[in-house]
Amino acid sequence: MNFCSNCGQPMTHRTPPGDDRSRFYCESCGVVHYQNPKLVVGCIPETEDQILLCRRAIEPGYGKWTLPAGYLENGESVAAGAKRETLEEARARVEILAPYALYNICHADQIYLMFRARLKGNSFQAGRESLEVKLFSENDIPWGEIAFRVIEATLLQYFDDRRAGRYSFFMGSIPKP
Amino acid sequence: MNFCSNCGQPMTHRTPPGDDRSRFYCESCGVVHYQNPKLVVGCIPETEDQILLCRRAIEPGYGKWTLPAGYLENGESVAAGAKRETLEEARARVEILAPYALYNICHADQIYLMFRARLKGNSFQAGRESLEVKLFSENDIPWGEIAFRVIEATLLQYFDDRRAGRYSFFMGSIPKP
Repeated sequence: MNFCSNCGQPMTHRTPPGDDRSRFYCESCGVVHYQNPKLVVGCIPETEDQILLCRRAIEPGYGKWTLPAGYLENGESVAAGAKRETLEEARARVEILAPYALYNICHADQIYLMFRARLKGNSFQAGRESLEVKLFSENDIPWGEIAFRVIEATLLQYFDDRRAGRYSFFMGSIPKP
Repeated sequence: MNFCSNCGQPMTHRTPPGDDRSRFYCESCGVVHYQNPKLVVGCIPETEDQILLCRRAIEPGYGKWTLPAGYLENGESVAAGAKRETLEEARARVEILAPYALYNICHADQIYLMFRARLKGNSFQAGRESLEVKLFSENDIPWGEIAFRVIEATLLQYFDDRRAGRYSFFMGSIPKP
């Protein structure tokens, strides 16, 4: 952030009057440009005994597998965001079952919120950001080729819970690499 | 947003190349300035049979009662944010017990995440943004003077669950007024 988006003057980064931490702050017009973590929403689309994964067509993680997920948009509920991302990346419609896991990724200023979801119909195909979309049984999950640690953590937790026969809302953190 | 914070040129709002919705987009340098919902984190600080509320010293809701809550900061976990807000607004230390409720406030581009928390010690006092901080039994909650609908909804849900003797993670939405 080099310039103030309000008045166009050069930006400083310092503690604004009355605040207790350094912010992007415009000395000319006095506007504080707060920066806050972004919420990433997604889901685990499940059938009777399989789940849907997408192979990424974009960086980061090109060619690796992930769950459908992406930034929540303004005006959107968390469940609507998870459904939209699933439609965009896997051309699949899902019924959201329940919030399942929240992960803090503090070093990336991201909070992940993942839902359990039921795949509606059996229709899916690669969206623009996917090379391939495929159903996997637990035994076939490509563990060595998962795109992100937060997705790997979500899947490990999910299959643990599934084997135990009970799902609850899980909260965790992904440490800095 | 009038100017590009990257290059300082005047900003437009239109659908950037390859996107599917209108964004703040700089025609000069090509940077898209995404805007996403903000996460508000807070808690219900509880003792054996009472909860802690803060009377607001700032607008909106000046003079009305609320639970300690505020915007999650970059680099912070959701639980750490809820603890920090409680320390700032109520000068109280809490142990976070569990995530309790998530509310979509789509028209305000906010997602609220509230925790149940246990008040540590019995020390609390008004922080800079509070006029007064006080413990309330369910029967004494000032229902007509709660600052925000999302806080009222959280409290109603909480006392329902408390009477039923079981808490689970709740997800809801606050409709546009």
